[in-house]
Amino acid sequence: MNQHNTIPGFVSAAQFDTLFERVSNWGRWGPDDEKGTLNYLQPEHILASAALVKSGRHVSLSLPINTVAGPDNPHPSIHHMVKTHDIPTKHGEPRFAGDYLGSELHGDSRTHIDALCHVSYKGRLYNGKLPASVTSRGATLMDITAYVHGIAGRGVLLDVPRFRKVKWLEPGEAVTAEEIQAVEKVQGVRLSEGDICLFRTGHHRRRLELGAWNNSCEGEGQAGLHVNAMPLLHERKVAVFFPDGDGETVPSNVEGVPYPVHALQIAAMGMACADSLQFEELIEVCEEEQRWTFMVVAAPLRLPRGTGSLFNPIAIF
Amino acid sequence: MNQHNTIPGFVSAAQFDTLFERVSNWGRWGPDDEKGTLNYLQPEHILASAALVKSGRHVSLSLPINTVAGPDNPHPSIHHMVKTHDIPTKHGEPRFAGDYLGSELHGDSRTHIDALCHVSYKGRLYNGKLPASVTSRGATLMDITAYVHGIAGRGVLLDVPRFRKVKWLEPGEAVTAEEIQAVEKVQGVRLSEGDICLFRTGHHRRRLELGAWNNSCEGEGQAGLHVNAMPLLHERKVAVFFPDGDGETVPSNVEGVPYPVHALQIAAMGMACADSLQFEELIEVCEEEQRWTFMVVAAPLRLPRGTGSLFNPIAIF
Amino acid sequence: MNQHNTIPGFVSAAQFDTLFERVSNWGRWGPDDEKGTLNYLQPEHILASAALVKSGRHVSLSLPINTVAGPDNPHPSIHHMVKTHDIPTKHGEPRFAGDYLGSELHGDSRTHIDALCHVSYKGRLYNGKLPASVTSRGATLMDITAYVHGIAGRGVLLDVPRFRKVKWLEPGEAVTAEEIQAVEKVQGVRLSEGDICLFRTGHHRRRLELGAWNNSCEGEGQAGLHVNAMPLLHERKVAVFFPDGDGETVPSNVEGVPYPVHALQIAAMGMACADSLQFEELIEVCEEEQRWTFMVVAAPLRLPRGTGSLFNPIAIF
Amino acid sequence: MNQHNTIPGFVSAAQFDTLFERVSNWGRWGPDDEKGTLNYLQPEHILASAALVKSGRHVSLSLPINTVAGPDNPHPSIHHMVKTHDIPTKHGEPRFAGDYLGSELHGDSRTHIDALCHVSYKGRLYNGKLPASVTSRGATLMDITAYVHGIAGRGVLLDVPRFRKVKWLEPGEAVTAEEIQAVEKVQGVRLSEGDICLFRTGHHRRRLELGAWNNSCEGEGQAGLHVNAMPLLHERKVAVFFPDGDGETVPSNVEGVPYPVHALQIAAMGMACADSLQFEELIEVCEEEQRWTFMVVAAPLRLPRGTGSLFNPIAIF
Repeated sequence: MNQHNTIPGFVSAAQFDTLFERVSNWGRWGPDDEKGTLNYLQPEHILASAALVKSGRHVSLSLPINTVAGPDNPHPSIHHMVKTHDIPTKHGEPRFAGDYLGSELHGDSRTHIDALCHVSYKGRLYNGKLPASVTSRGATLMDITAYVHGIAGRGVLLDVPRFRKVKWLEPGEAVTAEEIQAVEKVQGVRLSEGDICLFRTGHHRRRLELGAWNNSCEGEGQAGLHVNAMPLLHERKVAVFFPDGDGETVPSNVEGVPYPVHALQIAAMGMACADSLQFEELIEVCEEEQRWTFMVVAAPLRLPRGTGSLFNPIAIF
Repeated sequence: MNQHNTIPGFVSAAQFDTLFERVSNWGRWGPDDEKGTLNYLQPEHILASAALVKSGRHVSLSLPINTVAGPDNPHPSIHHMVKTHDIPTKHGEPRFAGDYLGSELHGDSRTHIDALCHVSYKGRLYNGKLPASVTSRGATLMDITAYVHGIAGRGVLLDVPRFRKVKWLEPGEAVTAEEIQAVEKVQGVRLSEGDICLFRTGHHRRRLELGAWNNSCEGEGQAGLHVNAMPLLHERKVAVFFPDGDGETVPSNVEGVPYPVHALQIAAMGMACADSLQFEELIEVCEEEQRWTFMVVAAPLRLPRGTGSLFNPIAIF
Repeated sequence: MNQHNTIPGFVSAAQFDTLFERVSNWGRWGPDDEKGTLNYLQPEHILASAALVKSGRHVSLSLPINTVAGPDNPHPSIHHMVKTHDIPTKHGEPRFAGDYLGSELHGDSRTHIDALCHVSYKGRLYNGKLPASVTSRGATLMDITAYVHGIAGRGVLLDVPRFRKVKWLEPGEAVTAEEIQAVEKVQGVRLSEGDICLFRTGHHRRRLELGAWNNSCEGEGQAGLHVNAMPLLHERKVAVFFPDGDGETVPSNVEGVPYPVHALQIAAMGMACADSLQFEELIEVCEEEQRWTFMVVAAPLRLPRGTGSLFNPIAIF
Repeated sequence: MNQHNTIPGFVSAAQFDTLFERVSNWGRWGPDDEKGTLNYLQPEHILASAALVKSGRHVSLSLPINTVAGPDNPHPSIHHMVKTHDIPTKHGEPRFAGDYLGSELHGDSRTHIDALCHVSYKGRLYNGKLPASVTSRGATLMDITAYVHGIAGRGVLLDVPRFRKVKWLEPGEAVTAEEIQAVEKVQGVRLSEGDICLFRTGHHRRRLELGAWNNSCEGEGQAGLHVNAMPLLHERKVAVFFPDGDGETVPSNVEGVPYPVHALQIAAMGMACADSLQFEELIEVCEEEQRWTFMVVAAPLRLPRGTGSLFNPIAIF
């Protein structure tokens, strides 16, 4: 029997609430904290990450912006030209071409980072704040500008398909705490305080080879973390979580909670989380360099009141 | 008489065309090069920049995204909520708030980076390519994905108002090659091969204190480079240019060329250029650390066919 | 003394609440009515309006869509080409050009119609419904599709500047019930049950001649109805109100109520109201035909959950 | 053999060019005409159409705006709230909810009208104008404001499925000139000068019952006119064409011309054409009233430089 292909046991609603309490960081950094686990990422970690820059290679962790509707892109971004070089500039040369981008800031086919106001669980945001603090004009608390000065630190890639010796995990497969530790061991890395965890299920490798699919709980679902992995991330004081899917195992392993990983990571822990990164270029560099740690620098757009942002995180070796 | 407040002599159309040829990099990196001066920024420069990370401080170089129309923002960005926490998630908790950003990707009040296809001069893009390569569906050459893996290197701030002992340069004031060298001397820095030049005129300090103004050639204009500074940047092999205005002296000092700096930097040199950065937070750190060099990491959104991108560059000390 | 240039007496908060009750139609057409005063406009009125079609002339009552930011257009509409004829069609000719329109659906510089859900007063929409019925995903009650089959009926133009023998009313000037009756008398018309009242203050004539101004209560304001005119419209059973400004006298004549006409018309009466129509072409036809009644046909876009719509009403003579 | 299910003979490229010449109206109304066949619709036709208003019933001919991506909606419209009633108005009550609509102005799942600049055939627009007159900033000729004062006239519904005694025509089925005349006979109508032809294939009945499909030439296609019907419309001097699909038989019956009906109607004839109307409500009224002629009033949004517009045409009985 291949344990990796076994979906671990279902978690009851009561067990989940206990788990929520166990990993909660409410109050840990004060009642008005807006940084959550990013508080773990201190200057010494940034220095240590810069010391990982040895070859000067650097690589994008972002998907291309997707303007084509599809099963995982029901709300495609729009990209319009507002001017090509057919329009003279007043008063002479040069001429300028320009364009326009319109996009939702979350969604399964776009690489984005979530603000802590993005998720509420049972009527509370991270730190116990009220969901009504997000109004129809935007977030009045814990918006994406909490991360405005960027995230720089040590990236640690956990390449689960490499560990399992598969191209990708199949929808519904869950990665447990035990497996994370096994991956660490094989790769010779250990998630530590202040780290940026890059969590690879091979989501986009699957997408490239099989085409897009509906990975929501209405569709086929996706591979991701099992909720039992959250105490490990909590104890290790991981600061940032960057998965290639959205981090969730879908369908959910938790009774009555369709997206339990988001509930734990964002609402309970205040973790800086992104969704839908792309690691296919990264893993080539990792293999060539035979290392799975590097400097990562990422920054959201500076969008006041925003609940998230498209972004393009960069790994530097 | 204060030479800094004197607008240097007007440049004739013929002189400008000579200057264009002098600084041109057409063909230097092959006929299909899409990276331009970013070719100067090599791995050793990235390693050297990482070695500048000593305190772990980091700071955004971006303006907030501006959704309010004004004299320098005729096409305001839009930020809409697509969902607040009033909408239940199907099948249970948690709930999610989400939003939408729509924005032109150039413009004086938004921090953005230009693709090389953005500027044509007399019917040619950088490297002699044809402007018709930018179609109504976007750029087929030299789009913003040329920079997709990000820009990481040594940032060198030239703080011209600090040198002049003023809060900001006034619209129309031009910074010459001679003044750049004088600033370097006072700050103890020297622009070198592969550098990211951060060029501060105090544009946004002025804006914060006096309010926005029309800084185009139809309005009051702005302070920026004199075109005679371009051979210096060319000889020094500067890779990247990040100004706080858009780098131009407006009104132009060149006969019949309203935006000559863009013509030289982008169409002739193929320089990686951004517009409208914000250095007011940066200069506080520079003063405290008493240094004007640091690591800079910046990445455009991964927008195929784009002529530019909003971005949030980060300086790391 | 010219009574027309006198702003009638201020209305107290208590008087306003009495007025609100007096003109309220809550419950008149049942607890779930979504049509409000449009219930007055019956088939016989439509037949009578068609009988007014005698010359076959027809004219738009709409402003051009305004993509230029200005004092009365802080959120300009956007109009982008998505394709020009530079892009071949797959498999052969012909080619197609296409475009994109993005626009807020209310606002002072765009001709639009309001849904009844658009306005709440003291925690209630028309008919006593709750404002929370408008969620972050749109209106669940009384959206603009209540008018989806269009509005067709008799238009009656009240041309107040013509009556006053001025080009336009100045900001802050209010039109009272008495003046409406005087205008009717001079023009030989009488607002009757089911009518579409076109109310002209010359707002756009002023704009064309003097340029745009900030007509909100933060700026210079605008001419419009005095709240004492509302019982007259109520008693006459006017179905639809189409003004050239937004119908309001700004600044308001009512204590603590910045937009009292909207409160009365939409929240109390359930009146089908539009804003920012354009009558400059219409009045030329009226003068030539020497009549101020005609058929009007108007329809919102069929936008489920919408709170309003851009539209282009047509007068047919 | 059922002739209705037979696709009439393929048309060669040479035959098509002859047909193009035969129905061309280039020059008919002068070299700078922007109205095309709308010139046929004269005041007397409007008067006659108003005389058809007998019962006062009126009905929308529009689909709902579709914000959900699907096989016939690759670029869904967006509808965002910009404000709900959670935001207080400055200075007091009432409060206002508002929203935003963003949409392409053509496309198979939205009811829209085409400007004459929308279609070019072999390097020419209607009347021989050049396609480059449509720039990246919009149309400089024959934009949608040519129809700004609206279209009012006699609507004649040709209900082909009713004639064939089927619920809808299947994709690829073509309606010939002969069949149009047979439909006329059965319904007791005759398309005449200045008429607005409503052409029903049952497209949206099929969509409602079977779900959306890809009706482009890349997909299953759709039922529509055979190109041999165009001389009939030409000779009858039909002014306006409003189909429920986009009027085309797809796949095309013409060699090398994927959308021949658009080429003939718009580029050759200058016909006022719309796409993707909805007649399911209309046919109920037609059946109840037992008539297939009525007044139609329709108007595009007043969008300068636009190549088309969403709209909501109204039939009045």
